Amino acid sequence: MTTTLPTTKMANAIRALAMDAVQKANSGHPGMPMGMAEIAVALWSGHYRHNPANPKWQNRDRFLLSNGHGSMLHYALLHLTGYELSMDDIKAFRQMHSKTPGHPEVDITPGIETTTGPLGQGIANAVGMALSEQLLAAEFNKPGYDIVNHYTYAFVGDGCLMEGISHEVCALAGTLGLNKLIALYDDNGISIDGKVEGWFTDDTPARFEAYGWNVIRAVDGHDVAAVAAAIAAAKTASKPTLICCKTIIGKGSPNLQGGDKVHGAALGDKEIAAVREYIGWDAAPFEMPADVYAAWDAKKQGALLEADWNERFAAYGREFPQQAAELSRRMQGELPAAFETALSAAIASCVEKKENIATRKASQNAIQALASSLPEFLGGSADLTGSNLTNWKECVAVRSGQPGNHINYGVREFGMSAIMNGITLHGGYIPFGATFLTFSDYSRNALRMAALMKLRSIFVFTHDSIGLGEDGPTHQSVEHVSSMRLIPNLDNWRPCDTVESAAAWGAAVRRKDGPSTLIFSRQNLPYQERSAEQIENIYRGGYVLNDVADAKAILIATGSEVELAVAAASALAAEGINVRVVSMPSTDVYDRQDAAYKASVLTRGVPRVAIEAGVTSFWYKYVGLEGAVVGIDTFGESAPAGVLFKHFGFTVENVVAKVKAVIAG
Amino acid sequence: MTTTLPTTKMANAIRALAMDAVQKANSGHPGMPMGMAEIAVALWSGHYRHNPANPKWQNRDRFLLSNGHGSMLHYALLHLTGYELSMDDIKAFRQMHSKTPGHPEVDITPGIETTTGPLGQGIANAVGMALSEQLLAAEFNKPGYDIVNHYTYAFVGDGCLMEGISHEVCALAGTLGLNKLIALYDDNGISIDGKVEGWFTDDTPARFEAYGWNVIRAVDGHDVAAVAAAIAAAKTASKPTLICCKTIIGKGSPNLQGGDKVHGAALGDKEIAAVREYIGWDAAPFEMPADVYAAWDAKKQGALLEADWNERFAAYGREFPQQAAELSRRMQGELPAAFETALSAAIASCVEKKENIATRKASQNAIQALASSLPEFLGGSADLTGSNLTNWKECVAVRSGQPGNHINYGVREFGMSAIMNGITLHGGYIPFGATFLTFSDYSRNALRMAALMKLRSIFVFTHDSIGLGEDGPTHQSVEHVSSMRLIPNLDNWRPCDTVESAAAWGAAVRRKDGPSTLIFSRQNLPYQERSAEQIENIYRGGYVLNDVADAKAILIATGSEVELAVAAASALAAEGINVRVVSMPSTDVYDRQDAAYKASVLTRGVPRVAIEAGVTSFWYKYVGLEGAVVGIDTFGESAPAGVLFKHFGFTVENVVAKVKAVIAG
Repeated sequence: MTTTLPTTKMANAIRALAMDAVQKANSGHPGMPMGMAEIAVALWSGHYRHNPANPKWQNRDRFLLSNGHGSMLHYALLHLTGYELSMDDIKAFRQMHSKTPGHPEVDITPGIETTTGPLGQGIANAVGMALSEQLLAAEFNKPGYDIVNHYTYAFVGDGCLMEGISHEVCALAGTLGLNKLIALYDDNGISIDGKVEGWFTDDTPARFEAYGWNVIRAVDGHDVAAVAAAIAAAKTASKPTLICCKTIIGKGSPNLQGGDKVHGAALGDKEIAAVREYIGWDAAPFEMPADVYAAWDAKKQGALLEADWNERFAAYGREFPQQAAELSRRMQGELPAAFETALSAAIASCVEKKENIATRKASQNAIQALASSLPEFLGGSADLTGSNLTNWKECVAVRSGQPGNHINYGVREFGMSAIMNGITLHGGYIPFGATFLTFSDYSRNALRMAALMKLRSIFVFTHDSIGLGEDGPTHQSVEHVSSMRLIPNLDNWRPCDTVESAAAWGAAVRRKDGPSTLIFSRQNLPYQERSAEQIENIYRGGYVLNDVADAKAILIATGSEVELAVAAASALAAEGINVRVVSMPSTDVYDRQDAAYKASVLTRGVPRVAIEAGVTSFWYKYVGLEGAVVGIDTFGESAPAGVLFKHFGFTVENVVAKVKAVIAG
Repeated sequence: MTTTLPTTKMANAIRALAMDAVQKANSGHPGMPMGMAEIAVALWSGHYRHNPANPKWQNRDRFLLSNGHGSMLHYALLHLTGYELSMDDIKAFRQMHSKTPGHPEVDITPGIETTTGPLGQGIANAVGMALSEQLLAAEFNKPGYDIVNHYTYAFVGDGCLMEGISHEVCALAGTLGLNKLIALYDDNGISIDGKVEGWFTDDTPARFEAYGWNVIRAVDGHDVAAVAAAIAAAKTASKPTLICCKTIIGKGSPNLQGGDKVHGAALGDKEIAAVREYIGWDAAPFEMPADVYAAWDAKKQGALLEADWNERFAAYGREFPQQAAELSRRMQGELPAAFETALSAAIASCVEKKENIATRKASQNAIQALASSLPEFLGGSADLTGSNLTNWKECVAVRSGQPGNHINYGVREFGMSAIMNGITLHGGYIPFGATFLTFSDYSRNALRMAALMKLRSIFVFTHDSIGLGEDGPTHQSVEHVSSMRLIPNLDNWRPCDTVESAAAWGAAVRRKDGPSTLIFSRQNLPYQERSAEQIENIYRGGYVLNDVADAKAILIATGSEVELAVAAASALAAEGINVRVVSMPSTDVYDRQDAAYKASVLTRGVPRVAIEAGVTSFWYKYVGLEGAVVGIDTFGESAPAGVLFKHFGFTVENVVAKVKAVIAG
């Protein structure tokens, strides 16, 4: 847009909104919005291509605040440029169910691309978005039709750059040559504890050059023209770009700017008055001069941008109707018709083959069976491809300058997971990525963020218990399955055989409004026979696998322990004790079933024993104080798997004894 | 030691032991030991100062394998140099309860300094050890008496350097100028997925220079003299040093070296025979020529080194008896006599003051009260000092060239926690470090490692629930307290007031054989009255806070919800319904009590309702299928804390209704 208003006044509008909203809430972070105001002017009034009337316009540039505590900066920009975010919304900053929560939250505020706050994950999401753009462009653009063609901009602070995840994702972005990723670094020398020189002395430009980034050094972050010129240069680079902007945190606050006190608390009425005086801002709180609105208004320009793209996309659609329809489908996250057919066929094939294989192998078979129907599949592994088995025959490795659909993420579990979230947020792909289950710890907050954002990211975890054997306790999960079940809105699946593995993949792909974990064994597991109804019931998370008349007890098991439950039930039957076996691949999904169904699986009053090669605490939810759990409440050991299962009591004898004990009461 | 044997043969001894042990176990990682064999010779036969007869010799150099999958390298070195690790132990590699587990485990194998395997944490532990050495030296050394004076050596691989934690800890090591930290980088260009050039193209030397490290580039990792010269140079540097060693993974395996297949699987009998031929190794598996043993033997040299130090330490003790005794006490991890007195006084002070304050403030008061009795306290925060309140009046910030006892770790939660583990492993300090509870996710695997290693690291987490208010769901824990309770051997404390907060600190400090988490509120919580017996029972993890005759129900609560339980009990009492209130600050500790005590707290047959501002699943372990849990099974919201507690049902009315329902059955 062309502005006639001085850019200083545009920047000061951000300052005023940020300080006044934080003051009204008596909570929030004025320092970053006031410090990055000119940078925001440079980007949003010059380079950033978006349409306030349609925040979901497919080819918009993406903009992310990795330093999400500065949310008022983004809210101010959205309000000023014409998004559906009123001054009343601004006034409701940090209040219950407002459109302006404390940190930016996707799907709550129009124009917010991702939920940030946990530092470093925003830049990781941005890497995922830039990667998606690069891959989609390679897949869909045609000569003369750059229909996928946008930049991804991220604001990052010192905190983001101290976090380890920034290393993982920026290194990978450099390796992959994501040249349309532009990060603007708020180099203000302050973090919460004070001047960063005591704990953060990285030569950040040199560090990013070591990653293969284009680095633009020492830009005056309060010089709009200088920042705008840097962005213009970044847009033509052949590498991702870091623009290092020297700034003063809380700039405009005469008594607090440049110090840590302005970071995360309201300025107070007196200092706010001082700011108004200092920057020459006459308007009352939450009043915005018409000339400021006029200068910031991006609605007309945004409509033109989208209209132009719509025209080009329409022309593309006439020439390449299939591709246009496919791109639209994928950006909307709709599954292709062929998917359900492929899933049914995959399960039928498992039933026919009755293979006794590791579920990680069963998972690979499912991927293989589904991949041709799901061109949006974008697989990967954190350097364990041959162990996780996330690749398939036709997959192509993504490399710099080489598009594909399988990513070698390197030994970067957290980065992988947060990049996957960025890919999901961008649209166009269903990402899955894998590591060993124990290392879900490394990526745990990214799983949480996927669950909070309701993203269809699929996290694959193999080597799921002491069953991995000799690698020992550092690699053997005991607490992870249960602990992931505690994350709201995360569906966790631990299948027991080929059929459940395929069904779990089906459920994860079908689920549009949340992430799933798929948890697989290293070791072989036997095939279980099921009726068609039982197969359908897998999708209910838990179901009766072996029923008996007049069950005296119910055995509940998951994954590798279903085999043991079945064997124990047989042994008990031989003694005339009838027990039901329930396979419970997903407690999360089971918990969502109606009461009648749940009562048909776990009948009230029948004693219960749960079996899982993991910690026991979680299972009392299903077995109660009178029930028993066969599990492992210590760390594992380094030894062959068979030795370990016996050592830790995963034996028919032990289960039989536990069942008899609960029946005796 | 002086060796007359060619260094090649010394290196080949490692190769033979590694490949034969992996082959016998049919499991393990031969590639790294074979690739780093010459580097090991350079370090262990020239520079490394240790005493095989006393692996706990206080002033030994520390040696860590951050790439812990190469455990056979370390086992081979320990065996060859004369530690209590026999050839039978080597033969038992990766077998149940052997001294040679799959990954190195501290306290199982003499000479192993830390448990590694989860990549990147070994180098973090090394940073903690080097920092401990620097701080202890500043505190205890006297002119002429460098009684604390050792190097810390770490082997790192590509995987470690891809992990985000390597960024966090190496950046901090550079900032703090840990010049006695020397890392040897196994730059073999291979990770599990193959040649790293597709996913790892960092200019690693430039990256480490950006951190302020001394980098020695392009050393031939198979040239013992070159590596030894690099180590000699590193020892005189004023910065931490990274020695970049170009190596061939699996070197010595004619058909597999230099490729990913040699990384993590037995070579097979045929290739092993080929190796013997190729490197000219005649000895049978698990037979070692006498000249090899003679060349490697470090017993005599080690005894001399320790004897020399003992002599110097004895002289130091004569001149500075108090300091010598104090250093010995602290290195042994014994608490000073004054500690229990200080703890009792701290609790008495809480009882006297009856303050209604946030437990994070109560925590700071406890730190303040204990610190003067505990010179080994080494506090810190991941850039949230003023929020976590982990500092105290007399604490001194650790800076480069400035020793102290409070560390600004920067925004590096995982790095902080793994560094703390290194500090604990080194001896001499009791570290505590803090962040917001939600960001325990970032550090989770370091908590697990502390628990696995039985380390007295104290992890402080504040802002523990929706009670933090406006920062919203990204910052509000709901699942974290329960999910940390699932980690074996981790004691988690969520105190309800000043007294419980002080007691939790007491318990964490007393606990020699494992880590604790201390979980505190942002908001004020009311003081609870207790008898002396009740105060003593806090240390049992759970206890009856308010008892009544003929209780119809038991309310169990933790932390900020104890107040609500007490209020609900009062409301019920007013209606003639007697309920007992149990405060359960640590379920982990409560679970270890004897059955009689537990029955006196949670009496069998009395219906129960648990209240915690977190997910409910965990609590069925205590309330059973017939009980109820007042909790929150979704993510939080951004709003003031009071609004949120009401919104999510943490009200007297709701608790009263739940109690009536469980009594009705």
